[in-house]
Amino acid sequence: MAERSLIFPAAEYRGRTARLQQGMEAQGLDALLLTAAADVFYVTGFLTRFWESPARPWFVVVPRSGDPVAVIPAIGADLMGRTWMPVIRTWEAPDPFDDGISLLTETLAGLVPERGRVGLPMGLETHLRMPLADFETLRSSLAPRAFVDATACVQRVREIKSDAEIAKVREACAIGARAFARVPQFAAEGRPLDAVFRDFQVALLEAGADWVSYVAGGAGPDGYGDVISSAGPEQLARGEVLMLDTGAVKDGYFCDFDRNFAIGRATDAARRAHAALWQATEDVVKLLRPGLRACDVHRLLRDALSRHGATVSRGRLGHGLGVALTEWPSFTPRDETPLRAGMVLSLEPCCETGDGRIMVHEENLVLREDGAELLSPRAEADLPVVGR
Amino acid sequence: MAERSLIFPAAEYRGRTARLQQGMEAQGLDALLLTAAADVFYVTGFLTRFWESPARPWFVVVPRSGDPVAVIPAIGADLMGRTWMPVIRTWEAPDPFDDGISLLTETLAGLVPERGRVGLPMGLETHLRMPLADFETLRSSLAPRAFVDATACVQRVREIKSDAEIAKVREACAIGARAFARVPQFAAEGRPLDAVFRDFQVALLEAGADWVSYVAGGAGPDGYGDVISSAGPEQLARGEVLMLDTGAVKDGYFCDFDRNFAIGRATDAARRAHAALWQATEDVVKLLRPGLRACDVHRLLRDALSRHGATVSRGRLGHGLGVALTEWPSFTPRDETPLRAGMVLSLEPCCETGDGRIMVHEENLVLREDGAELLSPRAEADLPVVGR
Repeated sequence: MAERSLIFPAAEYRGRTARLQQGMEAQGLDALLLTAAADVFYVTGFLTRFWESPARPWFVVVPRSGDPVAVIPAIGADLMGRTWMPVIRTWEAPDPFDDGISLLTETLAGLVPERGRVGLPMGLETHLRMPLADFETLRSSLAPRAFVDATACVQRVREIKSDAEIAKVREACAIGARAFARVPQFAAEGRPLDAVFRDFQVALLEAGADWVSYVAGGAGPDGYGDVISSAGPEQLARGEVLMLDTGAVKDGYFCDFDRNFAIGRATDAARRAHAALWQATEDVVKLLRPGLRACDVHRLLRDALSRHGATVSRGRLGHGLGVALTEWPSFTPRDETPLRAGMVLSLEPCCETGDGRIMVHEENLVLREDGAELLSPRAEADLPVVGR
Repeated sequence: MAERSLIFPAAEYRGRTARLQQGMEAQGLDALLLTAAADVFYVTGFLTRFWESPARPWFVVVPRSGDPVAVIPAIGADLMGRTWMPVIRTWEAPDPFDDGISLLTETLAGLVPERGRVGLPMGLETHLRMPLADFETLRSSLAPRAFVDATACVQRVREIKSDAEIAKVREACAIGARAFARVPQFAAEGRPLDAVFRDFQVALLEAGADWVSYVAGGAGPDGYGDVISSAGPEQLARGEVLMLDTGAVKDGYFCDFDRNFAIGRATDAARRAHAALWQATEDVVKLLRPGLRACDVHRLLRDALSRHGATVSRGRLGHGLGVALTEWPSFTPRDETPLRAGMVLSLEPCCETGDGRIMVHEENLVLREDGAELLSPRAEADLPVVGR
């Protein structure tokens, strides 16, 4: 059997490393320590679902110059050996007495001068995927070296997608769209919601998803109370609105968009809400430009929803995506991240429909110098009715 | 549409809370702070795939006495409101200036005296699922209260499964077994490995999985180099061994076992390795008893593999499972965790088959006072041949 090829040519990863190193230089960082699945995948191309097991930490160190170093459990040596990564150091994990910490300490000590600085993502939307006690051991072993926040350093690089990355998200979106097109085959009055979720996941796989990392949704009269639930055996009823949302994965890249369907017939309220969500998206897609801030997009969406007669709901109205289901920035009133060409974004207007219910609509796009280009095939303007 | 019911009656969660509180009492903890998906699910029953989004942290605080408190993003209020959790506090997340930290600080300050101690899982197989900078703010805001390691406190409770939990893992295993029974329908010479992975995931969903959090595997002559890869387009060849491993999920509970298949014909080496793996499992299943330590199980498996003529490979040879794909303990030479009745475990002997290749075999079981009871329907003793 042939060895599996890299997702992208090594040049893609070398470019990412160089851009991270520019950011490190600007911030005076001697090394970057990455522990989270998305960051490790971004630098190395190491693609596995093994992150599902919390047993072992995985480390990638990006030095100020030169190639990154993988410091990983031996079980990953074969797979990491098939990526572009030139230096791979392993230990037998899990080890209750030293789970890679002495190896990581030695690696960082060799790359960072005594008075140097190690960057680590510590800010919004990050977490340290290693035991906290081990991190504290690492930090004190490496003193007087300082650990400082490198969230912005990583985010400013990851948020600008290459053409190759954009093509992958577009492919994931096309898979999502093919699966959504099959919803009328399995969503109808009387069908249990968990069966619909299951059929939808099968449809995503049959449409070409490598795997389905996220499916959520809801159903109810004129909207749903919740958009993050798993499904129970409750049956769809005539006149309800069903929403399905998915993060399907192709070569490690996500789509993240949803679709609404009326079961049997559409109520006036649901139709009106859907039209307002659709039209607000249409309006804001035309207005997106580099230089707007995330909070400006929130305001544009909120204003567009009001203009089209909908009551905007609280919470964020969109976000970035790519190697994770959701990435920064967040379209909220408080996120001032400037939009830049190359960002892949989700527009996700959400409105209240009464009685604690909401409806939400979502599209994915890439921002270009001259405006937005949709990546998800556009939803129908009118709320589709299924199982009629 | 009817509201979704809890996975278990509230009494199950009250019992878990009481057992955590006994451990906290013994360790002198005034509160326990939980941030990881499995811990939050364990205490609350809050089941969602939304953990896939790294955007928001989620907190559960277990006080020394009384009910736990959920401190969560507003987007989860509806779903958490359908669990048994009596106290739910929310904020609008993500918030770049205060992502729940003032609310969490206030909650902990109200429950923990000034000289008190907050427990947090910080040890092996844990991580803190919140931004590290926010944790440091929390810690200094709450000083002189101390944050101490509560890994053992949580593990000693979670590792003993209730009958209701064991039934869920058994159901997940039965789903896995039904999907493995369908492998001969889609694995054959010439089929691309990624298509086989996709078909296997469809089979798991059709067999009743709510979702498929983990599929990995490998294929090669007399074994595979790697057991954590995703799949590429490489085609299965006659005489190769295909291994598929899955963590399928039912009501938040995992199975984690694998099966091997020979494509077209089985080589003598692959047949012998499979027989040794199968027989070593058979031997050790009969020997498992409460009171053995995890490292004893490793030794028993290693000795059994040698006795049956196989070369044991490095790495762990099994582990716990339940609300995560893998849980502690680990069957390695260095893990001295004592086995106790009620533990759900994976036996995963692995042997080298030459040329950098391995074969691995896996079953799931629950340990009872008088020995092991299999949860995964037992593999065939002889390596099955498919696509003949």
